[in-house]
Amino acid sequence: MRALVFDETLQFAERPYKALPGECLVRVILAGICNTDLEITAGYMGFTGVLGHEFIGVVVQGPDELLDKRVVGEINVACGECVLCRQGLERHCATRTVLGIAGRDGAMADALSLPAKNLHLVPETVTDVEATFVEPLAAACEILEQVHIDPSARICLIGDGKLAILIGRVLACIGAAVTVVGKHPEKMVKIPAIERIEAHRFKPDRSFDIVIEASGHPSGWQTALQAVRPRGTVVLKSTYAGGFEFNPAPLVIDEITVVGSRCGRFAPALRLLADGKVRVEDLVSAIYPFDQALEAFAAARSSQTIKVLVGVS
Amino acid sequence: MRALVFDETLQFAERPYKALPGECLVRVILAGICNTDLEITAGYMGFTGVLGHEFIGVVVQGPDELLDKRVVGEINVACGECVLCRQGLERHCATRTVLGIAGRDGAMADALSLPAKNLHLVPETVTDVEATFVEPLAAACEILEQVHIDPSARICLIGDGKLAILIGRVLACIGAAVTVVGKHPEKMVKIPAIERIEAHRFKPDRSFDIVIEASGHPSGWQTALQAVRPRGTVVLKSTYAGGFEFNPAPLVIDEITVVGSRCGRFAPALRLLADGKVRVEDLVSAIYPFDQALEAFAAARSSQTIKVLVGVS
Repeated sequence: MRALVFDETLQFAERPYKALPGECLVRVILAGICNTDLEITAGYMGFTGVLGHEFIGVVVQGPDELLDKRVVGEINVACGECVLCRQGLERHCATRTVLGIAGRDGAMADALSLPAKNLHLVPETVTDVEATFVEPLAAACEILEQVHIDPSARICLIGDGKLAILIGRVLACIGAAVTVVGKHPEKMVKIPAIERIEAHRFKPDRSFDIVIEASGHPSGWQTALQAVRPRGTVVLKSTYAGGFEFNPAPLVIDEITVVGSRCGRFAPALRLLADGKVRVEDLVSAIYPFDQALEAFAAARSSQTIKVLVGVS
Repeated sequence: MRALVFDETLQFAERPYKALPGECLVRVILAGICNTDLEITAGYMGFTGVLGHEFIGVVVQGPDELLDKRVVGEINVACGECVLCRQGLERHCATRTVLGIAGRDGAMADALSLPAKNLHLVPETVTDVEATFVEPLAAACEILEQVHIDPSARICLIGDGKLAILIGRVLACIGAAVTVVGKHPEKMVKIPAIERIEAHRFKPDRSFDIVIEASGHPSGWQTALQAVRPRGTVVLKSTYAGGFEFNPAPLVIDEITVVGSRCGRFAPALRLLADGKVRVEDLVSAIYPFDQALEAFAAARSSQTIKVLVGVS
């Protein structure tokens, strides 16, 4: 089968059309390109293999209740037996593999392999395009699982990329009043907000109860620490390519809480899409056919695009 | 009156024996030397003035209900009107002064000035020596105000200095099972623990639910991040003199929460001392008379001592 593989360079390759032992085979319909994919092609995670972890597909080999059904899939494949797995935190299992990110081929191929327990049926009211947003939308919803967001809190959202937009739309679902700080006015308007401020005009004054840093740039981390009030919370969604000079003394003096936040559960995200509480189709900048996947990656790297999808079948 | 002043060097000086307008005058009985004092003499906070913020004294000028009574004093003097003050967080008031630390002369003198609302009567069952521990014990209790400590959690306490010992003794009050990682076996035995491990033998394995970093060394921060489990909490009590290279990506990937923690309220600490729940007198390595305060500071710098007090009157 056709596959888009990263191994020092991004290239097309042939891979066998089959599932791993005991897993389901899923024919891929659509796959999304995420910033993590772009970082992987820059060396992040040291991953080599088939890229892609945002997808919708149809089960072509698996249990009867899934066969021929549209599915999305949780990307962490865990041992199921360790302390973390038994607490329902398979996303943190130390021996997990991660679809298209760590130790497991991903979704940019004619088909992918995942265990049945990772797959979720997609409700009829959710389109194929919407379903490719379940994984990043789950990452946005993860904030609600980890942190109590008081809808009356002063909230600052730093960033205006794909993930920041989805976070803003999730926060709107609880009636939160968000101040967005971003670099692209045409993207900031996609985020429900009471205030949108361009980063170079923003004067952080340690007044926000909660600051969500989703810019992907270390400057966002600095801004977050300047924007949060004493005893406030910084939710950190960004990972940065490199380190930087840091002294945590201000965290101690101002008693700041920093909460790292990553992947989320799929079920809440699917419900938000199925109920129309979060709309996402306006975020698709382009859908490329699979044989133009390299062009799709080039487009995804442009600051002009939001979400770029690859139509596999 | 006599005073121990830091102004580039630590020296004795004369200061007027009087209260600031509207405040109480407190004759100092005993004052404690804290690591923050030692850091200030190395340039931390850029403070110049009378050092010292741990004390017990007797009110010689003030309202009738305090006059001639033994008192300890909250060290942050706040505006009382800002949003943070109105939330009871005077400790975070942006315009506050801090006794012997920022903008306000401290306790290493015959007398000090504080507002009446900062002063707490010391119960008869609390000795003068015990009372000098109220401020650092309050800083230890602060952890219980900020973080839910499940007594059954796996807790790692990094450090074996004055503050770490008090934290360990507070955690013992809730029946917590603590693993201590320190550098001084003779100090580690002062901390109630189920396990005491010398730092160079400690093999962090990301297994602790809660890690409290109170070592004062940046190596403690690194150890804390290696010891905490995914989704766990690091309570950061240490401030470090300088910055260091840092990439927060592991905080995001493992969804770690970092909680900066500093000063606490005096009332819980006074209750723990009055009820005998926390004992502290064994932590006093020496009490120096005031005219030997410079020798007291030299002794406090030694890793052989725990708490060094200065007897003022």
